[in-house]
Amino acid sequence: MGYIHFDQTKEFDLILLGRVAVDFNPVDYYMPLSESTTFKKYLGGSPGNIAVGMARLGKKIGFLGKVSDDQFGDFVTDYFNKEGIDTSHLTKCKKGEKIGLTFTEILSETESSILMYRDGIADLQLDVADIDEEYIQKSKAILISGTALAQSPSREAALKALALAKKNNVVVIFDIDYRPYNWKSQDEIGIYYSIVAKQSDVILGSREEFDLTEQLIEQGRTDEQTAKYFHSIGSKIVVIKHGKDGSTAYTNDGNNYSIKPFPVKLLKSFGGGDGYASAFLYGLFEGLEIIDCLELGSASAAMLVASHACSKDMPTVEALKGFITDSKKQYGEMIARV
Amino acid sequence: MGYIHFDQTKEFDLILLGRVAVDFNPVDYYMPLSESTTFKKYLGGSPGNIAVGMARLGKKIGFLGKVSDDQFGDFVTDYFNKEGIDTSHLTKCKKGEKIGLTFTEILSETESSILMYRDGIADLQLDVADIDEEYIQKSKAILISGTALAQSPSREAALKALALAKKNNVVVIFDIDYRPYNWKSQDEIGIYYSIVAKQSDVILGSREEFDLTEQLIEQGRTDEQTAKYFHSIGSKIVVIKHGKDGSTAYTNDGNNYSIKPFPVKLLKSFGGGDGYASAFLYGLFEGLEIIDCLELGSASAAMLVASHACSKDMPTVEALKGFITDSKKQYGEMIARV
Amino acid sequence: MGYIHFDQTKEFDLILLGRVAVDFNPVDYYMPLSESTTFKKYLGGSPGNIAVGMARLGKKIGFLGKVSDDQFGDFVTDYFNKEGIDTSHLTKCKKGEKIGLTFTEILSETESSILMYRDGIADLQLDVADIDEEYIQKSKAILISGTALAQSPSREAALKALALAKKNNVVVIFDIDYRPYNWKSQDEIGIYYSIVAKQSDVILGSREEFDLTEQLIEQGRTDEQTAKYFHSIGSKIVVIKHGKDGSTAYTNDGNNYSIKPFPVKLLKSFGGGDGYASAFLYGLFEGLEIIDCLELGSASAAMLVASHACSKDMPTVEALKGFITDSKKQYGEMIARV
Amino acid sequence: MGYIHFDQTKEFDLILLGRVAVDFNPVDYYMPLSESTTFKKYLGGSPGNIAVGMARLGKKIGFLGKVSDDQFGDFVTDYFNKEGIDTSHLTKCKKGEKIGLTFTEILSETESSILMYRDGIADLQLDVADIDEEYIQKSKAILISGTALAQSPSREAALKALALAKKNNVVVIFDIDYRPYNWKSQDEIGIYYSIVAKQSDVILGSREEFDLTEQLIEQGRTDEQTAKYFHSIGSKIVVIKHGKDGSTAYTNDGNNYSIKPFPVKLLKSFGGGDGYASAFLYGLFEGLEIIDCLELGSASAAMLVASHACSKDMPTVEALKGFITDSKKQYGEMIARV
Repeated sequence: MGYIHFDQTKEFDLILLGRVAVDFNPVDYYMPLSESTTFKKYLGGSPGNIAVGMARLGKKIGFLGKVSDDQFGDFVTDYFNKEGIDTSHLTKCKKGEKIGLTFTEILSETESSILMYRDGIADLQLDVADIDEEYIQKSKAILISGTALAQSPSREAALKALALAKKNNVVVIFDIDYRPYNWKSQDEIGIYYSIVAKQSDVILGSREEFDLTEQLIEQGRTDEQTAKYFHSIGSKIVVIKHGKDGSTAYTNDGNNYSIKPFPVKLLKSFGGGDGYASAFLYGLFEGLEIIDCLELGSASAAMLVASHACSKDMPTVEALKGFITDSKKQYGEMIARV
Repeated sequence: MGYIHFDQTKEFDLILLGRVAVDFNPVDYYMPLSESTTFKKYLGGSPGNIAVGMARLGKKIGFLGKVSDDQFGDFVTDYFNKEGIDTSHLTKCKKGEKIGLTFTEILSETESSILMYRDGIADLQLDVADIDEEYIQKSKAILISGTALAQSPSREAALKALALAKKNNVVVIFDIDYRPYNWKSQDEIGIYYSIVAKQSDVILGSREEFDLTEQLIEQGRTDEQTAKYFHSIGSKIVVIKHGKDGSTAYTNDGNNYSIKPFPVKLLKSFGGGDGYASAFLYGLFEGLEIIDCLELGSASAAMLVASHACSKDMPTVEALKGFITDSKKQYGEMIARV
Repeated sequence: MGYIHFDQTKEFDLILLGRVAVDFNPVDYYMPLSESTTFKKYLGGSPGNIAVGMARLGKKIGFLGKVSDDQFGDFVTDYFNKEGIDTSHLTKCKKGEKIGLTFTEILSETESSILMYRDGIADLQLDVADIDEEYIQKSKAILISGTALAQSPSREAALKALALAKKNNVVVIFDIDYRPYNWKSQDEIGIYYSIVAKQSDVILGSREEFDLTEQLIEQGRTDEQTAKYFHSIGSKIVVIKHGKDGSTAYTNDGNNYSIKPFPVKLLKSFGGGDGYASAFLYGLFEGLEIIDCLELGSASAAMLVASHACSKDMPTVEALKGFITDSKKQYGEMIARV
Repeated sequence: MGYIHFDQTKEFDLILLGRVAVDFNPVDYYMPLSESTTFKKYLGGSPGNIAVGMARLGKKIGFLGKVSDDQFGDFVTDYFNKEGIDTSHLTKCKKGEKIGLTFTEILSETESSILMYRDGIADLQLDVADIDEEYIQKSKAILISGTALAQSPSREAALKALALAKKNNVVVIFDIDYRPYNWKSQDEIGIYYSIVAKQSDVILGSREEFDLTEQLIEQGRTDEQTAKYFHSIGSKIVVIKHGKDGSTAYTNDGNNYSIKPFPVKLLKSFGGGDGYASAFLYGLFEGLEIIDCLELGSASAAMLVASHACSKDMPTVEALKGFITDSKKQYGEMIARV
């Protein structure tokens, strides 16, 4: 604990920057998407889901983003408002850009794919003019989603937010959140991920995502080498995820803490990462021990992959703690701990 | 009868050129789209619906178009195949363009709106290279949808198909099908609609659509003046629609025939036009009297606005005739006739 | 004579629509362009040159076009003003588009090539909103240059001007002026050339240009077949050029008139066509016999290929007639006539 | 001396990345560009000029850039080859992009402006795929021109070259070279200039250019504060230019060295900066004292503003030293020194 200092005088715990979208998940799943006939509509997009997750856990959240000027833009804005998320800086696109859509194909408990509508899409229209220094100053931390870096003008908006956060001593959290969409080349990914990662206090990513981030710095690093490198240039906590093999948080005092997944009956194989991020960060803001942050993250991940939605099924603190208590009762105290 | 000569030696009755898309109609309707939570997925797009409608009525149909190279492209292609529509010239986009989407908002029986995803969309990628003279030669007629003219390269593909149809004495049917999307200016609409209308044997449109078509020729024409003008330059049948006030077919022998809507319990206010077009054209291909073609069209329109889908609920000949018989029994023989 | 009726009450003889550019011709020529070190700057672009040519011959000319909002746009506008050409409808681009540039490589008397800057260029920004019906009404005739059809929005601007000329009984002259730049496909060329050619009173082009125009109508036509076809749908005069083998004007009374080039010491191999067009059209407006129009055209062409510039060296009536008189004295009365 | 360590085992002294263009300077100057009639063609573009300048001074130079696949691309490549500059990584654009053009308006000795053709231009097409790690490894240093950062894909190519230079311990020189063209916003300039400046060993710029670079870090810094900041994060030499008031080099040992312009009869007011940069860097590579590097730079700047061209008139070592000797004879030893 105490790896990150959060300024308690700030109005917001966290302002997230990036993608908020609409998910259409099939009601008649475990079949190809082309054959599914009926779909449920949910708020989606990784930072959008994390925002909802953290708001459910009681944190004061703002969202810096762009939505469409239509009924789907209204849906997302209304949804955030109902969850108590500040939408004062969630503005509407003026040139008819549409909000991103994700149609999910759930072939089985462990196989899924997505069909995304992401060309000329609202979230990537976030512009440097939308980045308000006063707003960023009001928050303990900002979270930059790596997908925001995939295209201009959103890319420069994210880099401006990063610069202003650094200038104003606002904690920077980088969720690499790699999606192949919108990027033009592999090199481009390495260039922009590394620019942001090098200036972040907390970095969250899978091994593959850290490999992408470090491709032009040094290739083939181990998790330990990666963590050591980022700690050496200022990062406080580096979280490296290995899917069903669990994840490890490396802290800049040389320690590391590992967690495994909770056992759960899977409905689908996506959505876990957003649950993980929101509950882990909730723990950080609460000043919990790192291992307890990880346990919360892992529990929320488990709850999400057992649910149909990503945003709508984010747990409250009570539900999250209840799930952990129940799992420990059933499987033993150390069920997720290594 | 006899206004149009169809070459009976041809393999296809009709090849349609233009838009095929995916519709998402809310299951929880009569509320704003932002609040609807569950959606049914259907094949959509006006020429796509007409293709299905005419195939259901037993005509031999081909479709000249572009779909996405993803599960939704598969869905549409599979759907056409199941309906017996030739998809040999329905090809997949190679640069990741997505198929158009239409989310419908059904506020009440008579109020609806649509939220369209139509930027950089598959159907508008149809290219001159996709237009195969041999394929067009195989059909009695081609139908060009006005939406295909809204953007390049689809615009030039449609104009090439038109040129090749004229060169090969294939009947040209123009369904104006005005949608404000994708057009850059009012003048542009007038320019391209008039180029196609002037060379068409059959033109179908509302009064507003004919006004758009004639804006650079002469403004403020009556239906009679419009019909007379197009007959004077070669058109055989001009159908002008006036919504709930019915529609009139003007033939190039100076006659005209009018029809009214059949009484029906509305579920939604869209889809009727595609039912109308498919059944009216079916009648033409069968060589029926114009007034009987119109009655079939009006009946199909009524059946569609009473249904949830546009494509999926297209009637068979049996169902269509059954509906007419039932309506006449209930309301009298002349119920739709003027 | 009398093939075309010009309304003598009109303010302008001719309004030209299309390209006006800046030419840079090397002073140190007969070497590769890469090695030329010094260049003369001239007003250029086929319709721009024809405008200057006809103004020099005393005709009242207007120009419907777009230039850059910079010193080169000023140069062209000032140049037109000095020549007495109306520039009330020659407007400046608002988004920084630059005027087209042509760097000419003069390898020998008969070999040349051009390096064009034509991407995102001013003349192709002409928009339907720039086409003023009242302006077109004021002219006896409009000339549409085929290059204006190569891209939107200029393409639609030209088609709107065509529609308004037809609506207002203004004579339409189509100078096919084929340039491979900017066109996306061969089919596209055939589509748009034929739309304009079919509605034109006078068509000027080389055999290759007519082949492009007729490619989707019928391939492989002879000059006689081409002329007959266009006469049958309303054209009055069809001029087909065969370079150094001369050219022939086909009139809609079944006659034809041929002319050969005047002997001349070549400086360069381009610019002749614009001299030809301006002097031929001058003759038409003067009501001269077709063979005399052709002789004027051929003489002007000869004078241009013997000069360094295209626009700047356009002859006056006196100079043109002097050249013809001198040539006839030297080579005989029938020197250019067949 | 000794602020920068250059690895003497390397094949190249310097590889420059960025803009090479063609300049057209009027022969009939001291009048508006619209009225100038005759132009001389020169190789241009700031990094192109510096490359020629340093080659003339005997340094081994390479150029990483893109040119057009036409006679102007040939001209530039041939010119570099004749100057002994390595063009193995100066490649031709494949999609018809043209090389940038600069038409200069020389209104008087001290007033000038430029008309640039910079849309969709060759140098900005430099792509990450063009950046070859082995090539960068072969050089003592790379110079990144700030104009290369103005647009993608050149922006990412420059950032990749920067990353690979850092990875391989190649000295990084950043010539801010601010041009308003191509940039989308003021913030964007600050974002990308600062990313490169923060990682550079040598930074060259005017006060205005450093203000742009630091706008999102801290505004309103003095030259001393600017130098101190960049030294604190690793820069060795920061050169800040104040036009006719001279310039100062700040070294990371806390020293600074100032120079004034040499007196000279001006022909034009541009080109001096490229002379300055090439001769100053020549001095650095020679291991001269900083004040001597500055004197060379100032002398070359003076020679350039007295000449018609920028590239073609770059001096040799002999000419440069001769100019300094002559100036000192005429005006005194300390003529340029403060």
